[in-house]
Amino acid sequence: MQYEMPTLTHVARLAGVSENTVSRVIRNKGPIADATRDRVVLAIEKLGYVPNRAAGSLASSGSLLIGVLLPSLSNIVYPEVLQGIYAALAATSYQPMIGVTDYDPVKEQSILSSLLAWQPAAIITTGFDHTDATRRMLDNSRVRVAELMDIDAEPIDIAVGLSHHQAGYAVGRHLIARGYRRFGYVGHDWIADRRARMRYDGLVQALAETGMTLEGEQCFDGPSSTMAGRDTLAILLERLPGLDAVVFSNDDMAVGGFFHCLVAGIAVRERLALFGFNGLDIGQVLPLPLSTVRSNRFLIGKIAVEKLLESPERALDKLVVDTGYDIVEGATA
Amino acid sequence: MQYEMPTLTHVARLAGVSENTVSRVIRNKGPIADATRDRVVLAIEKLGYVPNRAAGSLASSGSLLIGVLLPSLSNIVYPEVLQGIYAALAATSYQPMIGVTDYDPVKEQSILSSLLAWQPAAIITTGFDHTDATRRMLDNSRVRVAELMDIDAEPIDIAVGLSHHQAGYAVGRHLIARGYRRFGYVGHDWIADRRARMRYDGLVQALAETGMTLEGEQCFDGPSSTMAGRDTLAILLERLPGLDAVVFSNDDMAVGGFFHCLVAGIAVRERLALFGFNGLDIGQVLPLPLSTVRSNRFLIGKIAVEKLLESPERALDKLVVDTGYDIVEGATA
Repeated sequence: MQYEMPTLTHVARLAGVSENTVSRVIRNKGPIADATRDRVVLAIEKLGYVPNRAAGSLASSGSLLIGVLLPSLSNIVYPEVLQGIYAALAATSYQPMIGVTDYDPVKEQSILSSLLAWQPAAIITTGFDHTDATRRMLDNSRVRVAELMDIDAEPIDIAVGLSHHQAGYAVGRHLIARGYRRFGYVGHDWIADRRARMRYDGLVQALAETGMTLEGEQCFDGPSSTMAGRDTLAILLERLPGLDAVVFSNDDMAVGGFFHCLVAGIAVRERLALFGFNGLDIGQVLPLPLSTVRSNRFLIGKIAVEKLLESPERALDKLVVDTGYDIVEGATA
Repeated sequence: MQYEMPTLTHVARLAGVSENTVSRVIRNKGPIADATRDRVVLAIEKLGYVPNRAAGSLASSGSLLIGVLLPSLSNIVYPEVLQGIYAALAATSYQPMIGVTDYDPVKEQSILSSLLAWQPAAIITTGFDHTDATRRMLDNSRVRVAELMDIDAEPIDIAVGLSHHQAGYAVGRHLIARGYRRFGYVGHDWIADRRARMRYDGLVQALAETGMTLEGEQCFDGPSSTMAGRDTLAILLERLPGLDAVVFSNDDMAVGGFFHCLVAGIAVRERLALFGFNGLDIGQVLPLPLSTVRSNRFLIGKIAVEKLLESPERALDKLVVDTGYDIVEGATA
């Protein structure tokens, strides 16, 4: 076992080339014969040589870190955003550094402060709900900033996502057009998930424009989950058994609602229509594929990185990228 | 809007204290009156001041980065491991830097090389399947290394997880004790998921010890998913309609299998028992809670970080932490 950290000199010696050549191979600069490159790469692998990135990035003052702030990892939506971020970073030298905020702006502020201390090249975060201190830090830092998921407000720099108000409105119009009249809503904690609240507002607006209101709503006091959706629908239906359509705050909740209907012997769609949001895979493999709105999380992460890396400077005009949404007709509504 | 990056001097001036005091508050060193600390913290927040961590860590030669290599983010198991890692890091100054390997040892090697260039304090990775170059890099670097999920081989430094062979064996014993005799297996790509293969081997061993064999098996040529589980069970049952129990490579696959039974009108447990692995929430909210093995992903991530941070040096003896598993009786087997 070798306990001395191998250096550039060791690599050059083993490959039988100059240190300058090794350095050029590592930096991928200038013309180098394939055979020479192969010898250097082999020597690097054999020695387990690792170029010092931390020192290099400071010396060149161009950081290769991207700070990523996500609200949650237990909701599969955000790992999917992360997959898009990785896909766009794969061909680059950038590494993401990830913080999880639990949908808490104060926690976001604290993690951001700690991320900024690493002088990242860019910050990716979610939504527009930041503390004043977070905004000041982002302004001062002058790094590129992408705010993901939502385009219903003006971004600091770049916003990539969809209009949740529009999506909620479209769900309302769709269900009214299909003939449903007695609407209920099953949700989760709005303080933690403001985008769910915007979808709700859009839904209520669509109903109001047609002279209708929600007959009842029931919100679970915590994060969304299939279990919460199942139990919350049960509570709502005990109160209002005559509803003919229930809109859920997202697919996790709606899948749970579907399970409640299975167990309670409620004929889904014939007696009660169910509608979700997100277009998750699990909703699409239910015995009746879930009617829902598909948002493109992977694309949101990927586009954000691509736009951020186009220029190290913020443009004068804010950039808003609408990744849109699709109504998925499914078989539950 | 302020375009000059605020410095320690700006903070000191605004708080009306010396720069040395600001520095002590930031480093949390020495006694400082609460009122003074509050003034400094307020000034930091008001200015959006960010201490320079990257330069600091190089100067002190103690990196505050933890490199984390995960095989996947689309399987919810790994986001849960990450939640455990975050929980243990929350009270520290360490930041995780995460890479996703897609279960590919060559990709692991490439990402590890790039992570090590940041001189992390420790590396967390999954399983024991590494390339020789990966092992050499980890040996040379001398950083602490935790290999997660699995304890069926000798670790480089620390292993935290469960014996997948034992877990598969326990499933076999459990199902035999319940009276099942005609066994099938539904799996996914073993090359990508060696731990699923170890569980399979344990299951086959338990059957063999009782003079039985699998009557049939069907593997999906790709990553696990509910859709793959549903379709693969359908194919297996077309060939072998007389099976009385099917063991799935994990819960994602088993939940899909459950949906197939619902649609095909197969009475789960009475006619066909279903058994999963992981103890995911989704399996537990099915109309019949899934019979499965619960592994503790959150705990695996949390313990790994705690053990890594106990000492900056590797111990002479390797450490193996068995986080165990539980048979969840459920209602499907």
